[in-house]
Amino acid sequence: MKVAIIFGSKSDKDVMKGAATALKEFGIEYEAHILSAHRVPERLVEVLDKLEKEDCQCIIAGAGLAAHLPGVIASHTTKPVIGVPINAALNGMDSLLAIVQMPKSIPVATVGINNSYNAGMLAVQMLALKDETIAKKLIQYRKDMKDKFIKDNNEGVEF
Amino acid sequence: MKVAIIFGSKSDKDVMKGAATALKEFGIEYEAHILSAHRVPERLVEVLDKLEKEDCQCIIAGAGLAAHLPGVIASHTTKPVIGVPINAALNGMDSLLAIVQMPKSIPVATVGINNSYNAGMLAVQMLALKDETIAKKLIQYRKDMKDKFIKDNNEGVEF
Amino acid sequence: MKVAIIFGSKSDKDVMKGAATALKEFGIEYEAHILSAHRVPERLVEVLDKLEKEDCQCIIAGAGLAAHLPGVIASHTTKPVIGVPINAALNGMDSLLAIVQMPKSIPVATVGINNSYNAGMLAVQMLALKDETIAKKLIQYRKDMKDKFIKDNNEGVEF
Amino acid sequence: MKVAIIFGSKSDKDVMKGAATALKEFGIEYEAHILSAHRVPERLVEVLDKLEKEDCQCIIAGAGLAAHLPGVIASHTTKPVIGVPINAALNGMDSLLAIVQMPKSIPVATVGINNSYNAGMLAVQMLALKDETIAKKLIQYRKDMKDKFIKDNNEGVEF
Amino acid sequence: MKVAIIFGSKSDKDVMKGAATALKEFGIEYEAHILSAHRVPERLVEVLDKLEKEDCQCIIAGAGLAAHLPGVIASHTTKPVIGVPINAALNGMDSLLAIVQMPKSIPVATVGINNSYNAGMLAVQMLALKDETIAKKLIQYRKDMKDKFIKDNNEGVEF
Amino acid sequence: MKVAIIFGSKSDKDVMKGAATALKEFGIEYEAHILSAHRVPERLVEVLDKLEKEDCQCIIAGAGLAAHLPGVIASHTTKPVIGVPINAALNGMDSLLAIVQMPKSIPVATVGINNSYNAGMLAVQMLALKDETIAKKLIQYRKDMKDKFIKDNNEGVEF
Amino acid sequence: MKVAIIFGSKSDKDVMKGAATALKEFGIEYEAHILSAHRVPERLVEVLDKLEKEDCQCIIAGAGLAAHLPGVIASHTTKPVIGVPINAALNGMDSLLAIVQMPKSIPVATVGINNSYNAGMLAVQMLALKDETIAKKLIQYRKDMKDKFIKDNNEGVEF
Amino acid sequence: MKVAIIFGSKSDKDVMKGAATALKEFGIEYEAHILSAHRVPERLVEVLDKLEKEDCQCIIAGAGLAAHLPGVIASHTTKPVIGVPINAALNGMDSLLAIVQMPKSIPVATVGINNSYNAGMLAVQMLALKDETIAKKLIQYRKDMKDKFIKDNNEGVEF
Repeated sequence: MKVAIIFGSKSDKDVMKGAATALKEFGIEYEAHILSAHRVPERLVEVLDKLEKEDCQCIIAGAGLAAHLPGVIASHTTKPVIGVPINAALNGMDSLLAIVQMPKSIPVATVGINNSYNAGMLAVQMLALKDETIAKKLIQYRKDMKDKFIKDNNEGVEF
Repeated sequence: MKVAIIFGSKSDKDVMKGAATALKEFGIEYEAHILSAHRVPERLVEVLDKLEKEDCQCIIAGAGLAAHLPGVIASHTTKPVIGVPINAALNGMDSLLAIVQMPKSIPVATVGINNSYNAGMLAVQMLALKDETIAKKLIQYRKDMKDKFIKDNNEGVEF
Repeated sequence: MKVAIIFGSKSDKDVMKGAATALKEFGIEYEAHILSAHRVPERLVEVLDKLEKEDCQCIIAGAGLAAHLPGVIASHTTKPVIGVPINAALNGMDSLLAIVQMPKSIPVATVGINNSYNAGMLAVQMLALKDETIAKKLIQYRKDMKDKFIKDNNEGVEF
Repeated sequence: MKVAIIFGSKSDKDVMKGAATALKEFGIEYEAHILSAHRVPERLVEVLDKLEKEDCQCIIAGAGLAAHLPGVIASHTTKPVIGVPINAALNGMDSLLAIVQMPKSIPVATVGINNSYNAGMLAVQMLALKDETIAKKLIQYRKDMKDKFIKDNNEGVEF
Repeated sequence: MKVAIIFGSKSDKDVMKGAATALKEFGIEYEAHILSAHRVPERLVEVLDKLEKEDCQCIIAGAGLAAHLPGVIASHTTKPVIGVPINAALNGMDSLLAIVQMPKSIPVATVGINNSYNAGMLAVQMLALKDETIAKKLIQYRKDMKDKFIKDNNEGVEF
Repeated sequence: MKVAIIFGSKSDKDVMKGAATALKEFGIEYEAHILSAHRVPERLVEVLDKLEKEDCQCIIAGAGLAAHLPGVIASHTTKPVIGVPINAALNGMDSLLAIVQMPKSIPVATVGINNSYNAGMLAVQMLALKDETIAKKLIQYRKDMKDKFIKDNNEGVEF
Repeated sequence: MKVAIIFGSKSDKDVMKGAATALKEFGIEYEAHILSAHRVPERLVEVLDKLEKEDCQCIIAGAGLAAHLPGVIASHTTKPVIGVPINAALNGMDSLLAIVQMPKSIPVATVGINNSYNAGMLAVQMLALKDETIAKKLIQYRKDMKDKFIKDNNEGVEF
Repeated sequence: MKVAIIFGSKSDKDVMKGAATALKEFGIEYEAHILSAHRVPERLVEVLDKLEKEDCQCIIAGAGLAAHLPGVIASHTTKPVIGVPINAALNGMDSLLAIVQMPKSIPVATVGINNSYNAGMLAVQMLALKDETIAKKLIQYRKDMKDKFIKDNNEGVEF
């Protein structure tokens, strides 16, 4: 079971790292590609075909500005596509709207601006639907998160 | 395999119908509840617990204004939560931001404003990951959509 | 010399009519297609290839919401692409940003929200660069517009 | 008479300090907790129950992004809840809308973005309704503020 | 114990009715005035002085556009001021910002756009801090609201 | 003939300096005050009364956030009030809307965000209506500006 | 003493009527022109030259969309220019920003969206600086407005 | 065949450099001018007349704030005008709207905020319509861009 992470430029790597981090925490295999819907549209389709054949389960796509990458990917696959709006201008509002406002029938599961970690977590949640081990890890992860949060903040706050 | 559709008020029913329509097209069972994160928070948790026990696969949640429902549901389940921003003010911008901008670790898979049909389709795509029959239907659905689109628009346009 | 007008749905026809009107005023041939970057991506490429072979000079593309159509077309052609943001939500702001904020190297010449007439005029201006007759008509058109404006509004305004 | 200050992360402490400052100026007891509506929802309810039992008078809640904390708290108490939108993205506009646009019946008294001092002042104003001493201090505070303002700025400004 | 409701024009009466409705539900006395910070500033101060003398507990102020009324009232009283942004242009965004973004020390407790009912509820919550009867009614109100919500929506939803 | 410059805090002095600069360039007397509509409302009225008696010709008022100062001044004088939105949050959009969207009958002449120099120029233009010397200086100023602009940029640009 | 009212299209006449109404109330002569900065730029300059010769005191200019008319007029005159943003799209936000955000040295005195009456009032205030009669009328107008407001709203409000 | 690049201030030179870069890559002659629609309107018309006589093919115009320059140029020429919104305030949103929302008949081909390189590319695409050599270079440029993109990103990404 594999997840793909696709984004349009090396400069987006830092923002997109969170997706990989989340997947690693759950031991989920991923492969990451730099691909652009506008600069290399044919190459994008080739890679998407390859991913389809390798039974890639879902695709995380990050993009800024007029962020077409997630929607274009969604038009080429029936697998869930998770979109990460990247802030490259206008605080990321252009990117958010260009990703989330998809037309009827071709959804992109959009997460918060620059929040690639949540894209990774959403992929984990999807895979957990079919993989008992991941599902259990996910429940444990949430439990650990709660325990840690409570422990870290147990003492109240002094201003 | 079941999907839940939850929203906060009878007045949202028309907007949320699209989610049920999409699920019905794929023969996926759903149950719909009117529940509010603010008015009946305990009842919401009860229903979420019931859905968890019944192995509900994912939850579609629609809300307007300061739309907390999808995020609150996401904090009570490890199943994927799909958020539908409903336009009740400000063209739905308040609702979109209140749903999509979730903090690290607790994602909501957000679709376009009022676009509940896409929420249903996203649920279908998630279930297709584990159900071959749905996966095949989905590929056929996309193919049919293309054929119909091309047939409907084959003649070009006269102004 | 031909111009193409492409948009994603019959429901956009009224908004896009202005582009055809402007081209007709200058006797410029056009062909119009309903095509979607998301629903029929392969068909879109086929039509674009056909247009390329027929030496179509520029492409006017209108789209609403997460308006990817103009940008996707621009990625498949080196001809100028003129984008018309269509107001389908958020007063058209989503569409405007999704069209105008293209990444480096792949521009879309964007006009005002719903202002397809100006897209047609921009195509006329481009063709006038290589066609003396259109260039002359354009100068006359502007002159006539001025004369008409002044004649219509010559008398001042009474409130 | 006690006021609670609740926010979701240690990184918000600096922004929220103003609330404590205002309360201290009036000698009002407070306790501060780091609690998250999304990460530790059950723990949040526990603390709210504890605060209810201790007759906490009102709750100041600060949050950024899809800021659900104030609204979720408001759904669990009948005490006034004061919301502080914290700027974590989009200049705080997401947070402001996610806090202020509460549905009918469950208000959150919202103050300006990052303006936790005003949240503290609002709590003081509420407590002054039932406590003569605070009411008098408040009138004096306002008087002192005016005197100081006039004294500090008495000389006019030279550019 | 009395609450004042102040707004700037007869045309705002329908939007502001909700505040009176909420107060009536709890048997709280109110008086309502049409007063403008810009048109009758001296008269506004006179009425505020009168309200102060009559020990008015808090003031609900509704305004649209460059909505100064709540802030101007807040500068003349130490009682809590609750601001209702009224949508008269720009979907109410101008009014929301002109009310909520108050400077340090002079807060306005802002509720959602056009949501005067919540302003009334917030006043009820404040008065409940000092009045046991209202406090009990408020708890009952919340309980009844929950019961009614659950009863009304018990049967699930059929699309 | 005198112009007043009023703003709410020492921290706004740098932004407001441009107004004084413009007035100085035309030899127009001004006096500047730090005054707040919210913190010292009575003092503000006192100073406005004094300015009225001294036949102050117009008032330039700068404010940020929920910028009520220009509008409150406008409600106390029939002299033209020029409003300068100061960027203290939200890129100054809150301040712009809180200044420009005044209700019918009480205008504020609003200039661009942080653009106090233009407020000064607008005051100069108003005074030029009644003072021949200033009117002539203004024509010369504009001519000099043009000459300088053309001289400075005469050589074209090399990239 | 004359004021000019200029706007770009017959369709703006209703919105701009308020400016004439305000001027009429004070017996100030005006002349109104339909002129476009984009369609008849040379004609606009001709009329501005004529107005200059006739000693027109100030110019009220209304425009929608990319509203250049007020700024272009301001670049051709040293008289005060009052800009009225007209809502033709985006709730008038495009027009507001295109009018108010003028560069250094060339101000436009901007009023609220569609609020041409206030533009008229601002012109009255400017003329009152040099005309005692208008100044007195203005003081009386404000006084009458207050009296009428108080009389109309004397009885309080019953919901 | 020549292209003009016009912008309003030396401070915009860095942002506008991209336009020259793109033109240079295709060996297209350009001349650049600093000219302001507001400060030197007559000089602007002179230069536009000169450009017209020299058969300048299209004009790239960059401006910030209330960005009138591209639209004013468009009103004086029938050649295509390409507008570059420059971010000088509000993240460039004021400039974008002031450029793109042109009225019927006078279009400006707008590119993304600060994206002058794309303005240059759009000019190249227009000239390619009439110049076979540029057309071929453009096809090669796009091909090289693809090859370079694929080569640079061939190895996948390691986080």
